[in-house]
Amino acid sequence: MTDIAKLDPTDPLALAEALIKCPSVTPQEGGALALVADVLKDLGFVSQRLTFADENTPDVENLFSRLGTRGPTLCFAGHTDVVPPGDTSRWTRDPFAAEVADGRLYGRGAVDMKGAVACFIAATARTVAAHGAPKGSIAFLLTGDEEGPAINGTRKVLAWMKELGEEIDHCLVGEPTNVAALGDTIKIGRRGSLSGTIEIVGRQGHVAYPERAANPCRAMVELLARLMHERLDDGNRHFQPSNLEITSIDVGNPTHNIIPPRAQASFNIRFNDRHTPKSLMALIGRLVDERVDGTRFRAKVTYEPNPGDSFLTTAGGFVDAMREAVKGATGHEPELTTGGGTSDARFIKDHCPVLEFGLVGDTMHQIDENVPVADLETLTRIYQRLIQGYFARLGG
Amino acid sequence: MTDIAKLDPTDPLALAEALIKCPSVTPQEGGALALVADVLKDLGFVSQRLTFADENTPDVENLFSRLGTRGPTLCFAGHTDVVPPGDTSRWTRDPFAAEVADGRLYGRGAVDMKGAVACFIAATARTVAAHGAPKGSIAFLLTGDEEGPAINGTRKVLAWMKELGEEIDHCLVGEPTNVAALGDTIKIGRRGSLSGTIEIVGRQGHVAYPERAANPCRAMVELLARLMHERLDDGNRHFQPSNLEITSIDVGNPTHNIIPPRAQASFNIRFNDRHTPKSLMALIGRLVDERVDGTRFRAKVTYEPNPGDSFLTTAGGFVDAMREAVKGATGHEPELTTGGGTSDARFIKDHCPVLEFGLVGDTMHQIDENVPVADLETLTRIYQRLIQGYFARLGG
Repeated sequence: MTDIAKLDPTDPLALAEALIKCPSVTPQEGGALALVADVLKDLGFVSQRLTFADENTPDVENLFSRLGTRGPTLCFAGHTDVVPPGDTSRWTRDPFAAEVADGRLYGRGAVDMKGAVACFIAATARTVAAHGAPKGSIAFLLTGDEEGPAINGTRKVLAWMKELGEEIDHCLVGEPTNVAALGDTIKIGRRGSLSGTIEIVGRQGHVAYPERAANPCRAMVELLARLMHERLDDGNRHFQPSNLEITSIDVGNPTHNIIPPRAQASFNIRFNDRHTPKSLMALIGRLVDERVDGTRFRAKVTYEPNPGDSFLTTAGGFVDAMREAVKGATGHEPELTTGGGTSDARFIKDHCPVLEFGLVGDTMHQIDENVPVADLETLTRIYQRLIQGYFARLGG
Repeated sequence: MTDIAKLDPTDPLALAEALIKCPSVTPQEGGALALVADVLKDLGFVSQRLTFADENTPDVENLFSRLGTRGPTLCFAGHTDVVPPGDTSRWTRDPFAAEVADGRLYGRGAVDMKGAVACFIAATARTVAAHGAPKGSIAFLLTGDEEGPAINGTRKVLAWMKELGEEIDHCLVGEPTNVAALGDTIKIGRRGSLSGTIEIVGRQGHVAYPERAANPCRAMVELLARLMHERLDDGNRHFQPSNLEITSIDVGNPTHNIIPPRAQASFNIRFNDRHTPKSLMALIGRLVDERVDGTRFRAKVTYEPNPGDSFLTTAGGFVDAMREAVKGATGHEPELTTGGGTSDARFIKDHCPVLEFGLVGDTMHQIDENVPVADLETLTRIYQRLIQGYFARLGG
């Protein structure tokens, strides 16, 4: 951020330090995208700074950069925004100072995911320096709205790309996928996510006369017990079983002698490729009807907008290139999984095959987020091997 | 309230109108107790105005009046405070104007229970006028804190009476007990009431990784389902079955992708003479332990202070005098019940046998609360017969 001209584009630590020093808490750009665009410019990339707005959310800056004009295009996708540091007095280091201590780089975004952005830039710079322009294109799709509402970020960049014919063939998302050691996990898909709220309306009354009232707490407990015990599926080779969690139950009745008129509960389902949001809504609707139809209660289920569908990337050449890059650089045979939370990959999967591989996620979103400096070098080498393997297999 | 000197103490309508015009919404005295004390003074009663205070609640005025010095003492207990009128724009009459229309007296407190207070005063006045002083004593125990927290009301008057040796032998509470017609129901007891709150603490986490969290919503739903299905008893000749109602469930988690750290739920149990607050607390404790002990959850149950115990009045002479008074004045054979909510009788039952009989409760606490003017006259005649029958049976 300070003196960008001096940044060595092949040095992932220097790049990561410079990015961490940009205070890019969502939705602030903080200088991070500008820094990336400057560095990529020197490597020959053509960049588009894309600001998207929406009436209900703050403006967000995004970046799309491309090196090369022919296909195939390998795109690195990610974000430079970070979650807030939380209680900074609990950090042992300034979360935006990018201090290195005991072989670790500290700072908000170190693993999620400024570190990975730095590594892919360094991998690109080293590849171009060693082998010249790739037999195809390399692109960066970076957003400043991954940790926020994700409305003015990746989804809108993808729509813009589609409109302008900016095609990409395969995409790697640099989210922290590894659990215990760098190289242990590649994400080849994600479960879908569906969130909803159930409202049950009964009839208010006095607790001494329950027969004159209809207690929605009773109906809600019975309905939630039913939902909790519904076995959605047993999972399969690529996916763990789908799962429903109740995230809140709220009645808000402060009075001990009153039966309240209504109760509501929220839930989230993480589901595999046996389901779609539509099939799950039908299932929930059926279970609610079974319990509530013909009773003194009325129930209504509403869903959060934009549920994420599940996806699975089976594009052999791309998956093999990623797996061999990991194995070659680390010796690990990575697990190919679909577990965990959602990422912007849920938007990208509608455009091209997408994988996720980044750093070890153990400190992400936490106090004292940090990354071993050695991991930055290893991840850079993994990404170098991916770029070389990708164009060797798929390059024109 | 205006010109008390002109009030005819044998006219229940005039007395009820005057009382309704006193704006005695809890904890305001509103002139109501002063009015009663003035009227009773003319009948020969000696009155004590008792103001009780507490650090957390407003001061409350109460009244204890006695006619006669020897036993037995028949006490009429009740309250002159009223619940707020609510949305006065929905009333067709001013709730404090005591208008008579279509044979009905309208106003807040008409049935709960300024009407009954007026009737017992009129019954006393008529009895004294016709037969002279009773063979014993008649007392009034009136509070201004029955509809409120009930802390500075009847309970403290009873403690004051005990301290001063002000004994009463039998007590009639003038709460509206009748369901459809005046004379259909005498309350000879009440169920007890126990309120509590259960807190379950689990472990917060992300919905995508439920195995790393412990969702307290799940544990709460299972526990509440267990409590709901516990059959407390089958009731008996005098009491309906005990019943537990869940009154609130609260988690307060606005975030669809977070498993919350804690959940709480409140409940109320209305219980018969098969249980005590202590036995129920033991039962709840056991059911909670069964579900939660040895799991990843911690549960804590806390109870509201001063649970009400159940009681049953079986004092034959008193019950018979009340029943025969009803039958003689109305022709109805009243049902002797223990259903419904609590009243100040829960405090009085520790001092002497207590019954409840008043007006028809159908409009109590509602918009346009009202009482048929004819019912005021009938209730006065019932109370007259009670006074005469009581002293005929039990008087010295």
